[in-house]
Amino acid sequence: MRIETLTIVGVGLIGGSVGLAAKARGVASRVIGVDHNPSALAVALEIGAIDEAMTLSIASAVADLIVVCTPVDVIAKHVLAAAKFAKPGTIITDAGSTKGSIVERVDPELANGAFYVGGHPMAGSERKGPTAARADLFENRAVILTETPFTNESAWHTVANFWIALGSRAVRMTPQDHDGAVAAVSHLPHAVAACLAGMTPLDLLSVSAGGFRDTTRVAGAGPGIWEPIFRANRAAMLAAADRFADHWASFRALLAADDGPGLTRWLADAKRVRDALGS
Amino acid sequence: MRIETLTIVGVGLIGGSVGLAAKARGVASRVIGVDHNPSALAVALEIGAIDEAMTLSIASAVADLIVVCTPVDVIAKHVLAAAKFAKPGTIITDAGSTKGSIVERVDPELANGAFYVGGHPMAGSERKGPTAARADLFENRAVILTETPFTNESAWHTVANFWIALGSRAVRMTPQDHDGAVAAVSHLPHAVAACLAGMTPLDLLSVSAGGFRDTTRVAGAGPGIWEPIFRANRAAMLAAADRFADHWASFRALLAADDGPGLTRWLADAKRVRDALGS
Repeated sequence: MRIETLTIVGVGLIGGSVGLAAKARGVASRVIGVDHNPSALAVALEIGAIDEAMTLSIASAVADLIVVCTPVDVIAKHVLAAAKFAKPGTIITDAGSTKGSIVERVDPELANGAFYVGGHPMAGSERKGPTAARADLFENRAVILTETPFTNESAWHTVANFWIALGSRAVRMTPQDHDGAVAAVSHLPHAVAACLAGMTPLDLLSVSAGGFRDTTRVAGAGPGIWEPIFRANRAAMLAAADRFADHWASFRALLAADDGPGLTRWLADAKRVRDALGS
Repeated sequence: MRIETLTIVGVGLIGGSVGLAAKARGVASRVIGVDHNPSALAVALEIGAIDEAMTLSIASAVADLIVVCTPVDVIAKHVLAAAKFAKPGTIITDAGSTKGSIVERVDPELANGAFYVGGHPMAGSERKGPTAARADLFENRAVILTETPFTNESAWHTVANFWIALGSRAVRMTPQDHDGAVAAVSHLPHAVAACLAGMTPLDLLSVSAGGFRDTTRVAGAGPGIWEPIFRANRAAMLAAADRFADHWASFRALLAADDGPGLTRWLADAKRVRDALGS
């Protein structure tokens, strides 16, 4: 897999890591970065994540593949803007944590014969910005790529091969299945970690240990990233929040009843899932 | 701080680590291990966590300091049994994750002029048994030591100095304050992690990433350890579970209302606490 010109829109943690990985693995001959933040572009150039910085219109016009890595609430806007300037047949994908709301807006309005494939690499960090970018961020991670009635098969496979070339596994899902899956395994853990951290009095932190530290780690990511994600995936997230509340209520009821065997079963179910994940 | 004969009752992760730390730091001349499980004793001897294995009665009779590191539901029984065989003035402490129910049972029934100080090192692992023991497990960790109307000041300070010699900080609390604090920063995170893991379909694990992995890590510890802890700290744990449910309901309400500023504030509160903890 070799792409002549790769354009990355949004050179933060994810965009910067896409650039570093593409260059480290020789996947792109030329990597162009687009960002409204000049200091992010400067860092991306300095660490070698991109070769050049350009405006969205020029960078889109010369690109063979465009990867939009901006916050989820502006991805659709950037994909549609990039398509307007792109050559016919240019493939555009994104790295947004939600898919339904983005794909629904992009699919029917795509201009100039560009192809769009919604994407989501299941990788990240509680840190942000290109200074946190890593060439190995996507290694051995799943990347979910969406299929819809608008999907072009050839474009889908090009995007899949791009991520495979960066070390990932491509997984095919509808946008709706994607949103339900990530609500469960990505957005819900972030909300739960934030709930636990947010309710904890500061004066108790001095007696906390590794369990609290691990369970709340992702709450350090903060509202700038997660407020738009939760809102963009609101329907699936509300359903996941209710399932969590139900499962929590069952724990509370077992504890209130001092039901030892019931608590043991409830905890054993959790251990079975966690053990299946590995350490 | 130097103890002539240190007896450890229960040579699992915690007891084994107490032995390793005491020997590595020259805190005890002789370390005796007691355990109903012969293979745990064999491992503890092999890794050098204890010098000798004995029965509870003999090991208690020769000890200057006894540290009971068994599961919380049998700690009070072991403390009282050890006191029966101990010399007058022997100091007994424990490493149990709850204190109220243990201290209430032990304090009024202590025999032979032994002194008891309830203890809880805020350190652990999702792994168990002496094979997971580490000499540095208690370094830079808080150890909560309880005070009650029965507490002997000199004994309290001896136990505090023992843990300080193992690298910990001693924190003084009533058993009730301890139970509330650990419900919040230790037991609640375990229950939350288990709730998240337990409700997750196995087939979604393949698309999970670091957020799910970290947030559920402690759910791997399993029911053998946590069912007795939750039950021993039931009152404080029920109160913490209800506070968590309330804070979760506030998140759900903000999301249902699509309240961006409200979600941002809720997430920012969480980030403030998590950032105060450090990485």
